Amino acid sequence: MADQHLISVDALMSRVTSIFERAGLAPETARGVAHVIVAGERDNCKSHGIYRIEGCLRVIAAGKVDVNAAPKVQDRGLAVIEVDAGSGFSNPAYFAARDLLVERARKFGLAALVIRDCLHFSALWHEVEDLAGAGLAALSMCPSYAFVAPAGGREPILGTNPIAFGWPRPGPNPYVFDFATSVAARGEIELHRRAGTPIPEGWAVDATGAPTTDPEAALAGAMLPFGAHKGSAISTMVELLAGAMLGEFMSKEALEFMGGGSLLPRHGALILALDPQSFAARSGRDPIAEGEKLLTGISEQGARLPSERRFAARARALSEGILLTETELAQLDRFAALGLDAVRD
Amino acid sequence: MADQHLISVDALMSRVTSIFERAGLAPETARGVAHVIVAGERDNCKSHGIYRIEGCLRVIAAGKVDVNAAPKVQDRGLAVIEVDAGSGFSNPAYFAARDLLVERARKFGLAALVIRDCLHFSALWHEVEDLAGAGLAALSMCPSYAFVAPAGGREPILGTNPIAFGWPRPGPNPYVFDFATSVAARGEIELHRRAGTPIPEGWAVDATGAPTTDPEAALAGAMLPFGAHKGSAISTMVELLAGAMLGEFMSKEALEFMGGGSLLPRHGALILALDPQSFAARSGRDPIAEGEKLLTGISEQGARLPSERRFAARARALSEGILLTETELAQLDRFAALGLDAVRD
Repeated sequence: MADQHLISVDALMSRVTSIFERAGLAPETARGVAHVIVAGERDNCKSHGIYRIEGCLRVIAAGKVDVNAAPKVQDRGLAVIEVDAGSGFSNPAYFAARDLLVERARKFGLAALVIRDCLHFSALWHEVEDLAGAGLAALSMCPSYAFVAPAGGREPILGTNPIAFGWPRPGPNPYVFDFATSVAARGEIELHRRAGTPIPEGWAVDATGAPTTDPEAALAGAMLPFGAHKGSAISTMVELLAGAMLGEFMSKEALEFMGGGSLLPRHGALILALDPQSFAARSGRDPIAEGEKLLTGISEQGARLPSERRFAARARALSEGILLTETELAQLDRFAALGLDAVRD
Repeated sequence: MADQHLISVDALMSRVTSIFERAGLAPETARGVAHVIVAGERDNCKSHGIYRIEGCLRVIAAGKVDVNAAPKVQDRGLAVIEVDAGSGFSNPAYFAARDLLVERARKFGLAALVIRDCLHFSALWHEVEDLAGAGLAALSMCPSYAFVAPAGGREPILGTNPIAFGWPRPGPNPYVFDFATSVAARGEIELHRRAGTPIPEGWAVDATGAPTTDPEAALAGAMLPFGAHKGSAISTMVELLAGAMLGEFMSKEALEFMGGGSLLPRHGALILALDPQSFAARSGRDPIAEGEKLLTGISEQGARLPSERRFAARARALSEGILLTETELAQLDRFAALGLDAVRD
């Protein structure tokens, strides 16, 4: 298209990093945040790409994130490692503890990483994909903001609570899924509201708990979990394991703490890493080769594996560059020039 | 009802144990198997109660389970413990390794139990509930028989792959869910076939991959995962973690090994145990009290927590006894009198 321009992954990384440095983040922190945003854009995962920059700048401008936070890794030599994000973004905290998590999973067979007190905006696939790249199976989850009612209920008490899983495969791309445990994203309901179109049945209930297709009523009511009572149970598990168990905020307290859902949520996150080579050792089988029997069996019958579209977009971006619109490029220029003033009223 | 009789939990335990002893199991093995069957009946979980005795006897009569198997615990001092069921039933293997799993989860913060080479027939809630009773959060999963197609596919390659989760609560009953990752159980489709009634839309596809409400076509085709691509992804994760990762059968190989789905499947199982007190220690919060905020918030808005009906049935059974029909009691008598001859053609 005429108004689209190609930019290399490296060039975008450099531009986004400098935006965050201009906004007051230390260089390493800025790189950590920029890294996951550029990865999202590279994978044509637009909801977690450069679209997220504004939200990050707004929470910085509101003084709700510590721009000077340096992640502190806490290690008692056990299978559980903790990293305190110190009210900073989650990504630098993950990067600070990642190598230790890998080492510990290999040593004990499995290990867990607790991220405490972080601002969270990124997709979880980044972390599980990174760990799969180190040969580990990984499961990641976190609460969010309480916008979702349990199945059979009407009051929002659950978050959209994403859950992501990664499994190593031969070749460059692991098996990765990452999804919200709500039927839809809140942003999708917002888009219907702006367009004046009804939302599909099954997405939400109104404030009385009755099913609704009216986006206004849905936003004033509650979103619903995917998969009825089963998805609701999984979402509850995410609250318990990645909220209550860590002694960090669950989705309701996260919403109360921030005084509403307009800024990024602050809470913890849980990542489990398991070493297939350790688990399979006594069987004499190669767990990765075994996994391929299933995964190729899914692909060969024409069913799509999760993340396939993302990996295809990545291959294009790495060889040809990332396609951005003039509007997107102008916004990057504006953030770079104005810093936090770009998001202040 | 006139043809129903009350039997105490202890009396049923004694009758079921003696049926398995008569069928050739060692006393301790018989007790382990009987324990979970009686627990299912006690909780009015009829699909996993005394109904399962016949399936267990049939697999014994077919010589497909080692009645003399003694579970062997393998411990390398790590966070992963293994128990080899030696082609025996899964339940005695779990009981043999359970205390070590609890000890190791408390020591390291989390631990995993691998059950190898077991015949599997029981609901998973029994194990996660037992671990929740020891103050641990627990996640359990296993493959089954390949009767389920991935979302977007048509060939059965996934099992009904149950997943169960337990979380400790004050009082007698933990938070527990346990469900198949397929929309419905295969037995439900079989019931429709016998009754000549169509199955609901969304349960299955025929052999060409087209949606079907014909139970015959469904049984010849494939069942579907719950929650579309999200449930399909979770089912895939169960195959990878509880099959490939352990070097044990996935659902397709389990089906091939047994030469069809008429006998109980043989495969492995994975149980993760996490110690909330260890995870929460640095937060200064009580993870169990935090969890209660969520769980009471779900109950108080009128949404049902999973397992609530089971716990209510249990309370009735413990105070009044278990209600069995004359037909059920006659079947127990028959199994006790005839042993394996009762299930031989």
